[in-house]
Amino acid sequence: MNRFLRACAREEVDRPPVWVMRQAGRYLPEYREIRRTAGDFLTMCRTPEIAAEVTLQPIRRFGFDAAIVFSDILTPLVPAGIELAFSPAPHIANPIREPADLDRLHFPEPWSGTEFLSETLERVRDGLEPETALIGFCGAPWTLATYLVEGATSKSFTRAKSFAHNNPEAFDAFLDRVADAMVAYLREQVAHGAQAVQIFDSWIGALGAEDARRWALRPARRLLEATADLGVPRIYFANGGSHLLHDMRDMPCEVIGLDWRADLSMATRALPDHVLQGNLDPGVLMGPDAAIRERTLAMLEKAPRRGYIANLGHGITPDVPVRAVETFVRTIQGFRYE
Amino acid sequence: MNRFLRACAREEVDRPPVWVMRQAGRYLPEYREIRRTAGDFLTMCRTPEIAAEVTLQPIRRFGFDAAIVFSDILTPLVPAGIELAFSPAPHIANPIREPADLDRLHFPEPWSGTEFLSETLERVRDGLEPETALIGFCGAPWTLATYLVEGATSKSFTRAKSFAHNNPEAFDAFLDRVADAMVAYLREQVAHGAQAVQIFDSWIGALGAEDARRWALRPARRLLEATADLGVPRIYFANGGSHLLHDMRDMPCEVIGLDWRADLSMATRALPDHVLQGNLDPGVLMGPDAAIRERTLAMLEKAPRRGYIANLGHGITPDVPVRAVETFVRTIQGFRYE
Repeated sequence: MNRFLRACAREEVDRPPVWVMRQAGRYLPEYREIRRTAGDFLTMCRTPEIAAEVTLQPIRRFGFDAAIVFSDILTPLVPAGIELAFSPAPHIANPIREPADLDRLHFPEPWSGTEFLSETLERVRDGLEPETALIGFCGAPWTLATYLVEGATSKSFTRAKSFAHNNPEAFDAFLDRVADAMVAYLREQVAHGAQAVQIFDSWIGALGAEDARRWALRPARRLLEATADLGVPRIYFANGGSHLLHDMRDMPCEVIGLDWRADLSMATRALPDHVLQGNLDPGVLMGPDAAIRERTLAMLEKAPRRGYIANLGHGITPDVPVRAVETFVRTIQGFRYE
Repeated sequence: MNRFLRACAREEVDRPPVWVMRQAGRYLPEYREIRRTAGDFLTMCRTPEIAAEVTLQPIRRFGFDAAIVFSDILTPLVPAGIELAFSPAPHIANPIREPADLDRLHFPEPWSGTEFLSETLERVRDGLEPETALIGFCGAPWTLATYLVEGATSKSFTRAKSFAHNNPEAFDAFLDRVADAMVAYLREQVAHGAQAVQIFDSWIGALGAEDARRWALRPARRLLEATADLGVPRIYFANGGSHLLHDMRDMPCEVIGLDWRADLSMATRALPDHVLQGNLDPGVLMGPDAAIRERTLAMLEKAPRRGYIANLGHGITPDVPVRAVETFVRTIQGFRYE
């Protein structure tokens, strides 16, 4: 088993494995070079040759312990009849504004419509050494529901919250449908080579604890329970969820991903049964090498000794210099557990 | 002393005082009516007759226990040479991108350039019954610095963090200058009728604890220490700061404002020496009356028995129905401490 999978299983490792959210992305000159000629973002996702190449780029450059397949959490909504575009922010032309609109949302059963991703995963797996793990992913039900209702990213999520408060039972059922579809989607990814999966709850931070329990954690739990038989580690990334650490204690997954607002020492105490992943502020990578090294070592110091995956606390931003990522990665790769 | 000021002083009150952040705003038809003819947002702020009228509108309609003067946290940057526009999001044409740019930032000493606000405060005070408190406000140093550096609102704050990480001493000094200017600005507001002041740290939630302590809480503390002699209660609103409750325990202010991610019971234990303000999710106001009543009563239940000000956990959004605000306010106004 490679270092990443060993850490997910809480087995002994020489140092923490490391990867970076959005590691295949615009901060890399080789990515920008392909992007220049490859068309728009969705076309890149849907062209396995291109998607596989950009997935592998950061592995070649940095030797990350895991590759995450190049895609977007919204792509599996397209087979359900959702009209999606990126310009560059995501936009949905036919959002689900009220319960009646749910009649238009048809996730394929059995799952289909993302064969491009299956092919990408196979190509990436062929291009990876066994020491590098391959991660598939999906959006968490609440996060996908916010996009489906709002039709775009939002600051206040008033449309999604309005739907939920005014139609609580319909919203619960809506979240369940999304959860079940994502189970089938993740199953497909694992069948085609994903050795671990991450569930992105990018917008759980918009919810107070009571609403987070009902609208985010409950349907995410449903998704996780239904993927336990996949036999791969599952990472639940609760972005902005530092107020929910104790509520996540019994999440039925192997790994909890944390953003940089969460204190790793506190999280280690609050989540003793989970492997933790995270959580350097990507903003630190805008600073000088000395600061990056110092903050990265401080993070490793606070992290649990066993069952820990080094990462940023959020996706890397396009303006981060390659040099800074190099410093971050080499600091972790040079670290050894005593 | 009116109900709001009594609660700030932890004196006995019959029920919690209530006001709402951004209560003078677009959700009110009478505001939209004035806005339609009054020109742009900055012009409204700078026209005391208009600014006073929209400040008073929600008091007349709902009988809030406090009025907050109609303005924006960025208006006091204009006298310092900042070219500010709203379209409708704020935009700064000459941002402070590096330490050398700080030479262009000249806060007036003694303070001047916001006489329109002084006149607005006096007009509002004349229009208010003694039972209604008048609140002045400013942005916290970190929050204002993010606008000054980014030139706009931001999602990742990479420019502000880049400035800070690469020029830590210059950034500290920058924050101090902003803090000192805001002290003078608040002093002016109190001199013209503000009976309490709120310091909005709208973007402290972008910082992990270590950075929040240095870049947000430290300069906010400087501001608060220098305003202790004003003799008015000071509310420090730490938006997105639920991961910082324990770090705020010794903030030298009377009131801590909380957003809806913070649990009021936990906050009461973490901040025993402060009056608390907040924190209903504005998204709840998108729901039916029964849900608004239930959530509002649950909030009052969790709030400290003494030293508490009812409010939303964030500014009210423009799409909230007036009926929903009515339900929220009447629920609190109908509540009685046993």
